[in-house]
Amino acid sequence: MRPDLLGRVLSLLPTGGGRPELKAFSAMLRDYPQRGGKGIRSELLLASARAHGLQPGTPGGEGALWLAAALELFQNWVLIHDDIEDDSEERRGRPALHRLHGVPLAINAGDALHAYMWAAVHHAQVPGAVEEFLNMVWRTAEGQHLDLTWVQHRAWDLTEGDYLEMVRLKTAYYTVVMPLRLGALAAGVTPDERFTAAGLNLGAAFQIRDDVLNLAGDPLKYGKEIGGDLLEGKRTLIVLHWLAHAPEEQKGTFLEQMRRDRQDKDAEAIANIHRWLLESGSVEYAQDYADRQAREGLALLAEALEDAPDQAAARELLGQMRGLATREA
Amino acid sequence: MRPDLLGRVLSLLPTGGGRPELKAFSAMLRDYPQRGGKGIRSELLLASARAHGLQPGTPGGEGALWLAAALELFQNWVLIHDDIEDDSEERRGRPALHRLHGVPLAINAGDALHAYMWAAVHHAQVPGAVEEFLNMVWRTAEGQHLDLTWVQHRAWDLTEGDYLEMVRLKTAYYTVVMPLRLGALAAGVTPDERFTAAGLNLGAAFQIRDDVLNLAGDPLKYGKEIGGDLLEGKRTLIVLHWLAHAPEEQKGTFLEQMRRDRQDKDAEAIANIHRWLLESGSVEYAQDYADRQAREGLALLAEALEDAPDQAAARELLGQMRGLATREA
Repeated sequence: MRPDLLGRVLSLLPTGGGRPELKAFSAMLRDYPQRGGKGIRSELLLASARAHGLQPGTPGGEGALWLAAALELFQNWVLIHDDIEDDSEERRGRPALHRLHGVPLAINAGDALHAYMWAAVHHAQVPGAVEEFLNMVWRTAEGQHLDLTWVQHRAWDLTEGDYLEMVRLKTAYYTVVMPLRLGALAAGVTPDERFTAAGLNLGAAFQIRDDVLNLAGDPLKYGKEIGGDLLEGKRTLIVLHWLAHAPEEQKGTFLEQMRRDRQDKDAEAIANIHRWLLESGSVEYAQDYADRQAREGLALLAEALEDAPDQAAARELLGQMRGLATREA
Repeated sequence: MRPDLLGRVLSLLPTGGGRPELKAFSAMLRDYPQRGGKGIRSELLLASARAHGLQPGTPGGEGALWLAAALELFQNWVLIHDDIEDDSEERRGRPALHRLHGVPLAINAGDALHAYMWAAVHHAQVPGAVEEFLNMVWRTAEGQHLDLTWVQHRAWDLTEGDYLEMVRLKTAYYTVVMPLRLGALAAGVTPDERFTAAGLNLGAAFQIRDDVLNLAGDPLKYGKEIGGDLLEGKRTLIVLHWLAHAPEEQKGTFLEQMRRDRQDKDAEAIANIHRWLLESGSVEYAQDYADRQAREGLALLAEALEDAPDQAAARELLGQMRGLATREA
């Protein structure tokens, strides 16, 4: 995220006076925010606020910046817990927090960071923002519950509709719907109802693009481990589409590997599956699907922003959104 | 907790429309609150509000009830995460949530419940309450961090001062300091500064009494597993006092058992340690310590409540507090 926003986030967090244990605690809270996330969501929020007429540097601008900081804090506490829930090894090129400090301390640090998010929301003093953050946490947790339940039950007989419902709840609300709405609220404007449908489409496009990059991205550009989703047994549109069309033998190999825990998966079998997926056409299918979702979302968003007070900023926001579904990293 | 308060808590939580997975999610959120906690903290908050002149049934009464519900929600989400962090088996006579549903789903349910706590705080619309809840989450997480760090590092060379600092942060703030302060705020009164010192003493007394009951309580009255703290390797004043005075051989046995994970502990060795502790006088030492903390806390609290508008309610509050350090369950 932008340095000024990172500074704002860090200004809320404890510096760790007193006991050495509490110094370590503060360092844990500051770790993920300092690892250099892209700050996609906070940028969308600020772009939405500008499109709705908010001038940077005005008193209302402070509210927008606190909400942007809160959104980044949301992302970071959720990632700490997600990394535990998904048994992830790395985050932004370094070991996940629970791999450095153990699961108990990492759960606890995530909880404290969750409350620092609410401090940022409180600082913003933007009417309606609390309700947005409540809905954001609830929807995201519901989506995560769907995803984790499927992992736990080794459920792979899922439809495109199942995937879309999960990804809308788990990713689209906090990545697009809420940034659009919060930007409007920060500018003192009631959010356009069409932001929800637009954001759900664009958020799904964003996540599907992420799934595509995870399998077929450029390792030098994409920040995460290529093929990591396969090792984590993640449900993606690519895999679900491939499963519906794959030869029985390949499908059998896949399901057998997915019954294993991460550390017990066979590297050669996973490499084969990775290759089958790349050769199957399912990556292209998913990318086309994402492109359609993005087009629909952009059309709705353009409509909703037609009367926005700052049309230059609205175009900038649309450009940012367009980039999400086609990005290389 | 009281049925009307439980009803208020449940009224906030989702009922689980839609997919079966989301029904299961709602049931997870509703599970701990419905297991019949005693509601000690919400009762203290409501008693403090009455002592400060709040009349039940008035509009201000709604604010107090929402804060009481929020305090119960705090307790419940924290317990879900604590049970994972402490590797606990049971909670209120039933398997811990993560033993029923696995760690990933339980972390996620705790996070959602955390946000429902903020919804209750928001409903209360009591000026100053957000800051109190922020401080409550932060202090409790700091105390939990101390405790968990010691468990992780197998640290037993701790002083009474270390224990007291941990227990004040981890237990005293949310059990006594915050209920006293929130009750005042709900009645529209600035909390007396002495509530902090009084609450820290009384909260420590409460926790030490809990540690005493865990080793020496009546199994028919005490709701938890007698000796469970030993199996979990919990730091208590009793154990720290005993370690400073125990014969080297007994100490060696203890430290050897504490290096083991719960499931690898030797039942006979643990039973011996339990007996040594009971025979050592350290239980009585800890209870005396708790009694002194309680006396100091009660004296401070009585002073702070001298000018409270409802003296009958203030006496009731003092009586509830007195009970905490001498209770049997």
